[in-house]
Amino acid sequence: MANDKLVKEITSRDVDFAKWYTDVCKKAELMDYSDAKGFIIYRPYGYSIWENIQAFLNGLLKETGHENVYFPLVIPESLFQKEADHVEGFAPETAIITIGGKEELTERLIIRPTSEVLFCDHYAKVVSSYRDLPKKYNQWCSVVRWEKTTRPFLRGSEFLWQEGHTIHATEEEARAETLGILDLYNQIGTDLLAIPFIRGRKTDKEKFAGAEETYAIEALMHDNKALQSGTTHYFGTGFAEAFNIQFQDKDKVLKHVYQTSWGVSTRLIGAIIMVHGDDNGLVLPPYAAPIQVMIVPIQQTKPGVMEASSKLRDELKISGYRVRIDDSDKSPGWKFADSEMKGIPIRIEIGPRDLEMNQCLLAIRHNGEKMAVPLNNVTEMMAELFKDIHDKMYEKAKRHVDKNTQVVTDYETFKRLMAENAGYIKMMWCGDEACENKIKEDTAATARCIPFEQEHLGDVCPVCGKKAKQMVLFAKAY
Amino acid sequence: MANDKLVKEITSRDVDFAKWYTDVCKKAELMDYSDAKGFIIYRPYGYSIWENIQAFLNGLLKETGHENVYFPLVIPESLFQKEADHVEGFAPETAIITIGGKEELTERLIIRPTSEVLFCDHYAKVVSSYRDLPKKYNQWCSVVRWEKTTRPFLRGSEFLWQEGHTIHATEEEARAETLGILDLYNQIGTDLLAIPFIRGRKTDKEKFAGAEETYAIEALMHDNKALQSGTTHYFGTGFAEAFNIQFQDKDKVLKHVYQTSWGVSTRLIGAIIMVHGDDNGLVLPPYAAPIQVMIVPIQQTKPGVMEASSKLRDELKISGYRVRIDDSDKSPGWKFADSEMKGIPIRIEIGPRDLEMNQCLLAIRHNGEKMAVPLNNVTEMMAELFKDIHDKMYEKAKRHVDKNTQVVTDYETFKRLMAENAGYIKMMWCGDEACENKIKEDTAATARCIPFEQEHLGDVCPVCGKKAKQMVLFAKAY
Repeated sequence: MANDKLVKEITSRDVDFAKWYTDVCKKAELMDYSDAKGFIIYRPYGYSIWENIQAFLNGLLKETGHENVYFPLVIPESLFQKEADHVEGFAPETAIITIGGKEELTERLIIRPTSEVLFCDHYAKVVSSYRDLPKKYNQWCSVVRWEKTTRPFLRGSEFLWQEGHTIHATEEEARAETLGILDLYNQIGTDLLAIPFIRGRKTDKEKFAGAEETYAIEALMHDNKALQSGTTHYFGTGFAEAFNIQFQDKDKVLKHVYQTSWGVSTRLIGAIIMVHGDDNGLVLPPYAAPIQVMIVPIQQTKPGVMEASSKLRDELKISGYRVRIDDSDKSPGWKFADSEMKGIPIRIEIGPRDLEMNQCLLAIRHNGEKMAVPLNNVTEMMAELFKDIHDKMYEKAKRHVDKNTQVVTDYETFKRLMAENAGYIKMMWCGDEACENKIKEDTAATARCIPFEQEHLGDVCPVCGKKAKQMVLFAKAY
Repeated sequence: MANDKLVKEITSRDVDFAKWYTDVCKKAELMDYSDAKGFIIYRPYGYSIWENIQAFLNGLLKETGHENVYFPLVIPESLFQKEADHVEGFAPETAIITIGGKEELTERLIIRPTSEVLFCDHYAKVVSSYRDLPKKYNQWCSVVRWEKTTRPFLRGSEFLWQEGHTIHATEEEARAETLGILDLYNQIGTDLLAIPFIRGRKTDKEKFAGAEETYAIEALMHDNKALQSGTTHYFGTGFAEAFNIQFQDKDKVLKHVYQTSWGVSTRLIGAIIMVHGDDNGLVLPPYAAPIQVMIVPIQQTKPGVMEASSKLRDELKISGYRVRIDDSDKSPGWKFADSEMKGIPIRIEIGPRDLEMNQCLLAIRHNGEKMAVPLNNVTEMMAELFKDIHDKMYEKAKRHVDKNTQVVTDYETFKRLMAENAGYIKMMWCGDEACENKIKEDTAATARCIPFEQEHLGDVCPVCGKKAKQMVLFAKAY
């Protein structure tokens, strides 16, 4: 691991964004590859970011009455095939266990690519009355989807996620759940990751296999490609009918439940990297950072330096901050570069000359600013500083989105801009899948979502000239 | 779910302990069966107990410098076969993926039964210097071991656990880790689950596949069978040699690392059920209980009853207790039985007559005691009451162990007592596996462990008459 040329070895974002991305993933020690293609190792630093996302969202889910559960890793093939659209969507990318305990299985077991059918099967058994509703279950687990092209955090044969599965007595309640969870997902962006998401509904072409409606949060990466960062699905009674999930309502009538499902995954780590990162490495939003403050003692053998560093570390720790001292035998320059590569929001330098003035030097990762601060003031200013860093990171990301969002009313311009690597393009759409397909063929861009915040840009669909139904947000996507 | 005969439907422990056990698992809504044999569903109430165990142990592990990670679900077959003893031990019970994305795989993938080989493979890549040591990684995940006979929480084809994998520069440090973790595991019993564990070393016959030494915590169930509740393993340099995990030490010499692994699983939920449960259902130790206090309003439509119940609920909640009100339209009798079935440590009844006296009635689940308490005193007395309940539950379990632990110096008595369903039997042993095998054939009992607290019961092994080496704890086991 000893490597004094830590920073020099990263590819620049502008030279090769894909290479820059994998460089950061590896060199910030977020992950490593395993011997099984598409299955990555979440190293402590990367996993810790995921734990912070989990803690944040888990809190919101518990506050809103959701309960955690754990359902099996495997789905018997016959159960998997019960809902037609669902199986058609997922069957091509399943991994299948055919041997158990040295014997060929009589029924093959699918590794869950998602667990709708398992939850449905259980709900059908345990629900009989309106008193049993709603059931709002969530699980944190990994799922397996066989992928030909994989990239760390963005697309893997195995990834970590949470999947919520809820059933309700009324359509209204289920629809409210679908949108309410989307708001919680949006909060992950605004309050934790400093990422501005755009909320909207997916087109039928892009929706989840088996859903009536799919909603998404979309984010724009530094290279102007979009990343679908979370989805919620409204199922109506489709699954309930396939799995016979019925309840006796207050009016004594037997009815099917209304259902939702929703998930965010370790893709969010990919979003953090590609929204905030720079040519010096990772840049972490302060509330999600595993280490929020790294103290680097300068000339650490000089009297008082380690004592002052430890004292500050203890103060910050007691106040609830995640803080470390880098007291390794590396040079300060190496330590600075390492702290930057890992995207630690604040670096504090304490050396003999600082001590003479009873101060220390704060270096802010995301904008490179430095400031001298009296040692006694550091801890009390930290809360405000974190908020300031978070807000500025969010604003910077928002400016990138605004700068790279364009409104287009004719298809030639759309094609030219997409060829020039535009980010988001807002354009009217007739609602016809043929136009979506043409756009994808011509430009590789897809309908990211039909944003909740609609604008009336014109009366016709610029692709086919027919009457326009909605404004759609298009982009090339991961 | 509406069922007024909740309690009557449990089998008595003395009539059929196995049936009682599954009755409790199902009726306390801890789990449900899935369509895949041996794969269970952890329902919210059961999963919540696991979350409490996780939070407790996770805190201890982080305090002692361990880091969480996530390693892949699958192990390529060639990697799995690298350590001979290990593969021999686990190969017979593996589940194997042979198909991915509709195609036959060129290399079959084993679903992890445990992840030593994955961690070894990674460690070999990332460790090069003594500066990189120790690495103390842990992961919370599920593993799959193909089992013919399965029982909820005790033996399943899939179960939830944590697996720690550490590597160290010296034998001394690795040995200290192996024993240190065993102490943390023991703390789960003393401080959280109110279960007295016995700590000891496993005989060679019973140790983990690939380990030099295995240590365990053993618990005695109500039916006098033992349950291995957690294990820690010392590997020496065996895996490091097979996987070439080497580091340059301070003396510039290239050396192999010393390694450990350790795990506890959802088996601990089985231990809670079988140590503390009674004929009315589950009995939960207060610090692990998902709901610590259930408030049951009596005549809840009478003025003031719901208000007083809510006020008390809010007070307890603010003080950090996990409390609920059962305001369903069921009868008080049903609610009492349900609260008992679910093992909720304290039930509080509040009715109009209680309100007149400004008091409520506390019912303690584990011993059935009831006491009237002034409403204003409830919250402040709760901490002490929980401690008292926890201590009494621990003492009761300890008395059961003491009462059912016998010292034996001749083999005929050993056989007779085991036939009479004795619990633990302490007996001297020569160290020869032949005697262990004979004991198992004759009585179905196995060496649970060689307890750390040794007693000198005699000079010879009562089975073969040869010189005795140690005192062993024998029992029939799950």
